[in-house]
Amino acid sequence: MKDIEIAQQSEMLPIVEVAKKAGLSGSEIEQYGQYKAKIKLPLADRPKTKEKLILVTAVNPTPAGEGKSTVTVGLGDALSLAGKKTMIALREPSLGPVMGMKGGATGGGYSQVVPMEDINLHFTGDMHALTTANNTLAALIDNHIYQGNKLGIDQRRVIWKRVLDINDRALRHVVIGLGGVVQGIPREDGFDITVASEMMAILCLAKDIADLKKRLGQIVIGYTYAKEPVTVADLGVTGAIALLLKDALKPNLVQTLAHTPAIIHGGPFANIAHGCNSVLATKTALQLADYTITEAGFGADLGAEKFLDIKVPQLGKAPNTIVIVATVRALKMNGGVAKDQLDHEDLVALEKGFANLKRHIQSMKQYDIPVVVAINKFTADTLAELNMLVELCAKEDTTAVVADVWAKGGAGAKELAQAVLASCDQVTTPKRLYAADDSVEDKIKQIVTKIYGGKDVEFSPKALRQLSEFKTLGWDKLPVCMAKTQYSLSDDPKLLGAPTDFTIHVREFVPKLGAGFIVALTGNVLTMPGLPKVPAAMGMDLADDGTITGLY
Amino acid sequence: MKDIEIAQQSEMLPIVEVAKKAGLSGSEIEQYGQYKAKIKLPLADRPKTKEKLILVTAVNPTPAGEGKSTVTVGLGDALSLAGKKTMIALREPSLGPVMGMKGGATGGGYSQVVPMEDINLHFTGDMHALTTANNTLAALIDNHIYQGNKLGIDQRRVIWKRVLDINDRALRHVVIGLGGVVQGIPREDGFDITVASEMMAILCLAKDIADLKKRLGQIVIGYTYAKEPVTVADLGVTGAIALLLKDALKPNLVQTLAHTPAIIHGGPFANIAHGCNSVLATKTALQLADYTITEAGFGADLGAEKFLDIKVPQLGKAPNTIVIVATVRALKMNGGVAKDQLDHEDLVALEKGFANLKRHIQSMKQYDIPVVVAINKFTADTLAELNMLVELCAKEDTTAVVADVWAKGGAGAKELAQAVLASCDQVTTPKRLYAADDSVEDKIKQIVTKIYGGKDVEFSPKALRQLSEFKTLGWDKLPVCMAKTQYSLSDDPKLLGAPTDFTIHVREFVPKLGAGFIVALTGNVLTMPGLPKVPAAMGMDLADDGTITGLY
Repeated sequence: MKDIEIAQQSEMLPIVEVAKKAGLSGSEIEQYGQYKAKIKLPLADRPKTKEKLILVTAVNPTPAGEGKSTVTVGLGDALSLAGKKTMIALREPSLGPVMGMKGGATGGGYSQVVPMEDINLHFTGDMHALTTANNTLAALIDNHIYQGNKLGIDQRRVIWKRVLDINDRALRHVVIGLGGVVQGIPREDGFDITVASEMMAILCLAKDIADLKKRLGQIVIGYTYAKEPVTVADLGVTGAIALLLKDALKPNLVQTLAHTPAIIHGGPFANIAHGCNSVLATKTALQLADYTITEAGFGADLGAEKFLDIKVPQLGKAPNTIVIVATVRALKMNGGVAKDQLDHEDLVALEKGFANLKRHIQSMKQYDIPVVVAINKFTADTLAELNMLVELCAKEDTTAVVADVWAKGGAGAKELAQAVLASCDQVTTPKRLYAADDSVEDKIKQIVTKIYGGKDVEFSPKALRQLSEFKTLGWDKLPVCMAKTQYSLSDDPKLLGAPTDFTIHVREFVPKLGAGFIVALTGNVLTMPGLPKVPAAMGMDLADDGTITGLY
Repeated sequence: MKDIEIAQQSEMLPIVEVAKKAGLSGSEIEQYGQYKAKIKLPLADRPKTKEKLILVTAVNPTPAGEGKSTVTVGLGDALSLAGKKTMIALREPSLGPVMGMKGGATGGGYSQVVPMEDINLHFTGDMHALTTANNTLAALIDNHIYQGNKLGIDQRRVIWKRVLDINDRALRHVVIGLGGVVQGIPREDGFDITVASEMMAILCLAKDIADLKKRLGQIVIGYTYAKEPVTVADLGVTGAIALLLKDALKPNLVQTLAHTPAIIHGGPFANIAHGCNSVLATKTALQLADYTITEAGFGADLGAEKFLDIKVPQLGKAPNTIVIVATVRALKMNGGVAKDQLDHEDLVALEKGFANLKRHIQSMKQYDIPVVVAINKFTADTLAELNMLVELCAKEDTTAVVADVWAKGGAGAKELAQAVLASCDQVTTPKRLYAADDSVEDKIKQIVTKIYGGKDVEFSPKALRQLSEFKTLGWDKLPVCMAKTQYSLSDDPKLLGAPTDFTIHVREFVPKLGAGFIVALTGNVLTMPGLPKVPAAMGMDLADDGTITGLY
């Protein structure tokens, strides 16, 4: 049975019931249809929970699929089954990949969040509010320049890009303002995907409306002819942009197939953005549940590093356990097996590909947070392969547990849940990877050597020039958000496994002062994806009675 | 007191109560927060209503303000007060003008639909769904060309434009696909505002999901190198686009300050699009209420003409009464008075400016539908002015009633409501302006001479070439949607009053086969507005507790 069919056949609880299970009264939520709601913040005070936070991350993704969201949901349901007060906190899917290649982000099989169609399509409109806020700001910037340019913005130095929640290759590089005097002032520009935008990062890091407005006001949209930064506050439109994000700031409540409450809120990609759901969502879950399970995007080199180095300082709370999801198939691909050969047992390739998982285990342990490996079982996995993987992890002093969540839901993650509960009881003092006042260069070097296992960093002439400008502007000690391919620990998507001796190439920086970090663009990573030859959209349909097919 | 303050201080009924008043059960709606809902369609059969339809239109708009939505809401509340089962059916506001100059579209004073902030901002996300569907299609077109162009689409002849729900002058003319081989294929392109899009027209004209899909499939996105039209069905993505519009197709239910049920759904502008709310919304209101009051955009030359010539054939029902809204101020401006002199009594200018109203009365009467004039009272209007206007209308055999709806709500439109009720009881056989099989040229000529009062139509060489292409393609007998300035009956925004002997200049046609009409672009009218020197956005704010200020 297909994921969408399983989801469509499920009996959902009315969202008011799910809210009640989560400890939320009817007046603390705003319904969006019968099965979705927004949570009104701030919540009234309530008894303190255990506040255990579990971060789910993964090995580097391959076309074989890892099922990180599926494991996150399955683990949540397993903890619920074990009688623990549990909440799941996921990111919102982007329509770009839904229509393109990747599909949705609601888990799979019997470990899904529902209503999967709504969540994968417009959901409660957060993504659209972000797109609108972003592009309204862009229009206000170009209008300011057109209407006399009182601030003296240099149109060649506008860094605020427009966005769409669509994979649209043709909008990566554009020239706007053409058509003559009444149509605007021509300049080079480009569109990013919404999930890569600073608006998204701000929504995900803001603590409340006041913090949202402060961050929006601090956004640097470009520079004057005198190379002074120009902010949203300078333009005088902070209030209007904040108002467009008023509802998007509220976390969304849904449920798993097993009715575990799930908050889905904020959705930055982890390769070109910071990859974590919102601080407000995680805080709300921690406030309501004893066990909060959250997920960071792509492999541990991207999502988890950013969770720990960017989100944790804002959240004021580090994870109690990190779960690394791996599959036999993904590791075999990392060991050199082709996609169409994955159904054959191959212990040699598995052992070779294990190097990738091992690197992630080691890098996560540097934070002094307990690590558990979740082996997400696929049908073709052999017992010998699964056993070997558990043993290889044991050699790294790491518990690894096989979970069968796609087929069995929470019941397939009982043992994993027990391992995670035991792990969460360990008392630890999490460490930081880098010091807050390390320079941007030093931060990048530490991420590259300690997390990626690389040798060195090479900065392009443009990046070097920017670093010296950042010093003048006082931005040289901000946190760093790496934009890097998700497929490799290096910046070359073809280097699988656990490459060594490689150099990371930083070609350009993008300062994001509202988000509070500097984005480092490495390799050829693109902030606007394209559609594949046969987009997923071509397989979708809406029947005359409203039934959806072909959505993954 | 400001409109937003009146709205914020109002006690709204929970939307479930409003639904009940409208005869809708809880299971026939989907709540969006406590005060908004979508109506699930099709509705179950219920007893037949009187099905009286009242169309509210106006004189040509001036900076003085006419208050057409305010009168529509006030009249609806007055009919409710008179004990009639009433529903109001309005269009959804566009964020472009909200952030720019025009403000929202929820009425004013004590004649408003609420929650005004939500309606004027993201509402239930329909506008964003349309934007996304439109731009997903655009990305799929450019991707098709990029990935081998199996259909042989000529990139110079793609007519499907991208859209945003934003006033963004800089996007009117752009070049996309720059940056080299991996970034796409360069071509000239441009963005329209969402409310001018064919997606919006289709949403407003579709009768159900099947009709929506049929219309989407028929959209012509451009032409092949052999100049053959290419449709969405040819691209194989009808289902995916339909699926993005699944929820947007459902009408939205809200209420007036006096708790009269109001459906707000679909929002094409009347100058650059067809200017009416959705067929589904109007049908639903007719099914539920005895009296349905709806509104068409801008003056009767634009919104009402399109309502009668484009929407009525799809709706299968003509209005029982047309209400033309006029103000003393607007007519004085049409008579040559400057905006800062409007507070002084000026009977000469009023009589001169009456020519504009007279033209609209005469043009509407050609449809053999009874006409009532609503004089929307402003504080500075003198009794002599109001009386003169009533008398001038009487000379045209037309009832004119003064309404004071901004200050008094429904209580200020008692007399107007009685006039409308009497008018609705007249038995008439509405006529069509033009025959269905008249040619596009003939349809335009009839609109220009019979509705605008113009002398002739001049077609540009490009328009003439297109007309001959339409003949070959079999599109030469489609209805016409005029794109023309709202400020004048002519295509020159400076010609106020009731100009004669003028020529309308058609510079270009845009075929919209999904909507089922041909758009004729006249004069300099633009399908993407710009922002003014001081955009409304600059006065908006969101307080730390979530209170909105500066929204109009």
